[in-house]
Amino acid sequence: MKKIVAGIDIGGTNTAFGLVDQDGHCLYETAIPTLSEQPADQLFQRLSVAIEEAVARLSSTHTLCGIGIGAPNANYYKGTVEYPPNMNWGYVNVLEILKQYIALPAVITNDANAAAIGEMQFGSAKGMKDFIVITLGTGLGSGIVAGGQLVYGHDGFAGEIGHTIAVRDGRHCGCGRKGCLETYASAGGICRTAFTLLADNIEPSVLRSYSYANLTAKALFEAAVAGDAIAIESFRVTGEILGRALADAVAYTSPEAIILFGGLANAGPLLFEPTQAAMENNMLNIFKGKVKLIPSGLISGNTAVLGAAALIWKELEGKA
Amino acid sequence: MKKIVAGIDIGGTNTAFGLVDQDGHCLYETAIPTLSEQPADQLFQRLSVAIEEAVARLSSTHTLCGIGIGAPNANYYKGTVEYPPNMNWGYVNVLEILKQYIALPAVITNDANAAAIGEMQFGSAKGMKDFIVITLGTGLGSGIVAGGQLVYGHDGFAGEIGHTIAVRDGRHCGCGRKGCLETYASAGGICRTAFTLLADNIEPSVLRSYSYANLTAKALFEAAVAGDAIAIESFRVTGEILGRALADAVAYTSPEAIILFGGLANAGPLLFEPTQAAMENNMLNIFKGKVKLIPSGLISGNTAVLGAAALIWKELEGKA
Repeated sequence: MKKIVAGIDIGGTNTAFGLVDQDGHCLYETAIPTLSEQPADQLFQRLSVAIEEAVARLSSTHTLCGIGIGAPNANYYKGTVEYPPNMNWGYVNVLEILKQYIALPAVITNDANAAAIGEMQFGSAKGMKDFIVITLGTGLGSGIVAGGQLVYGHDGFAGEIGHTIAVRDGRHCGCGRKGCLETYASAGGICRTAFTLLADNIEPSVLRSYSYANLTAKALFEAAVAGDAIAIESFRVTGEILGRALADAVAYTSPEAIILFGGLANAGPLLFEPTQAAMENNMLNIFKGKVKLIPSGLISGNTAVLGAAALIWKELEGKA
Repeated sequence: MKKIVAGIDIGGTNTAFGLVDQDGHCLYETAIPTLSEQPADQLFQRLSVAIEEAVARLSSTHTLCGIGIGAPNANYYKGTVEYPPNMNWGYVNVLEILKQYIALPAVITNDANAAAIGEMQFGSAKGMKDFIVITLGTGLGSGIVAGGQLVYGHDGFAGEIGHTIAVRDGRHCGCGRKGCLETYASAGGICRTAFTLLADNIEPSVLRSYSYANLTAKALFEAAVAGDAIAIESFRVTGEILGRALADAVAYTSPEAIILFGGLANAGPLLFEPTQAAMENNMLNIFKGKVKLIPSGLISGNTAVLGAAALIWKELEGKA
């Protein structure tokens, strides 16, 4: 008998899930539409059917032992998802709903925390006890591990480095405040930086043909690779602001490594080099040269699914 | 037989120690000169004699079980003190030195971490699993507790919130960088703020008769209590900058409480009110109204000694 778990990654558009063994191998993976305008109950009903079918498709020697979930605005302690942006759920207790359909141990946290657990179990942070994962997607999420334990905080919402202030009275943020790190260092933030640079400079740039609504981090990356100066400078500025913020993050928890994860992190040296330089330049002396800046080690399959799977494996091991 | 430990607080001028029972009662306390221009060995030789004498002075039913030490630039993992400012020690392994004189379990950490353990064992943070202690002395130290564990970090130097950047390119800091939080929020920082305010404004103030070298946080406090507008404004500005920084700190570890400790914290509402207001105003919505800002609960006796004692009690309990 071989034990497996289901890792679920709930997004605004699609919900991916995979069946993952204890070594982090994803034996099966698929996605269903989230239909986020409908109540949460509806999603978990469809998910439970899909998971059951997927398990049946594997050999009969596999036994499903638990469910791990990564979701926006998820609370590890309460099992809730609370007023997620882009989803019509309001405040729901996901673990209570899930229980009606699948009677197995289950655990939920936000996607950045799940990514951190995933890196610790299967990825770049194997064997590390102190590290930070930064997810660079539409926004900037973070999962902090200290002394081998994920930092959930008193209320389960720790790790909001994306909403620390990078520039006092800076850019408007979706959170209602100004100057949050994620308004600079994220897929959305780098596009804002590109538009500022287009306005401030006179170089020709392929980016001048994009509307604000159409510009994407992917288009910026391609322009930078093709040598577009404004695009390259956009990555440099983003890395500079991110690196400064990471120098402060190091002063909090003194991590062995900071792992950059998610779409924007795939830009490689374009982002890593200015980030690393700014981090080192701005760091307190005692930390200089000590902190690795590395990419995610979760390279095969859906990283968020692996993270969610790692989360429930960690719980099951804790109870074993 | 009653178990006791020795809590030692090493300072640049004096080294205090106390004999403390498991409930945090200090049964005996005294101090000897540190003589910090001499090698560390010399201090621990004198300390061991003084501790032995002190234990002998208690009733014969007391047994010394361990030694806890708080010291500047101390490293919990290595047992070292590394290039402390104002002391001529260089890099020394304190636990190795101590072993020659007292063959008992011993542990060392920096003073802010010892204060955090002290608050958790005997003070304002009893029963809390997530909190931050901020020590407002000459500089600004911090001890972060997450999930019931002190955050030491990969290298033992975590918790340097005093050296996160409060004002980009701001005041010169002793660490060689600019704009560190402790250049604004500390006994030294508030004096710098007062001098800026004296320069920028024309109100009469008793502070105008002080030289920069003579002004102290205590004199500022007394002037503020007497109604001096510049002194009061100095506390308000200090609280504003500290409160903003604490709003960011909350986003990292989502603590139940932040405890202000040390000389400047004794100013009470003069400091707490503007700090609390700025913290709430600058906090991410999900944290608003959740985080207590409270004074130290270690009010009787030498708090640093109690913290150092709590540190070794915690180790002894962990091994019991």
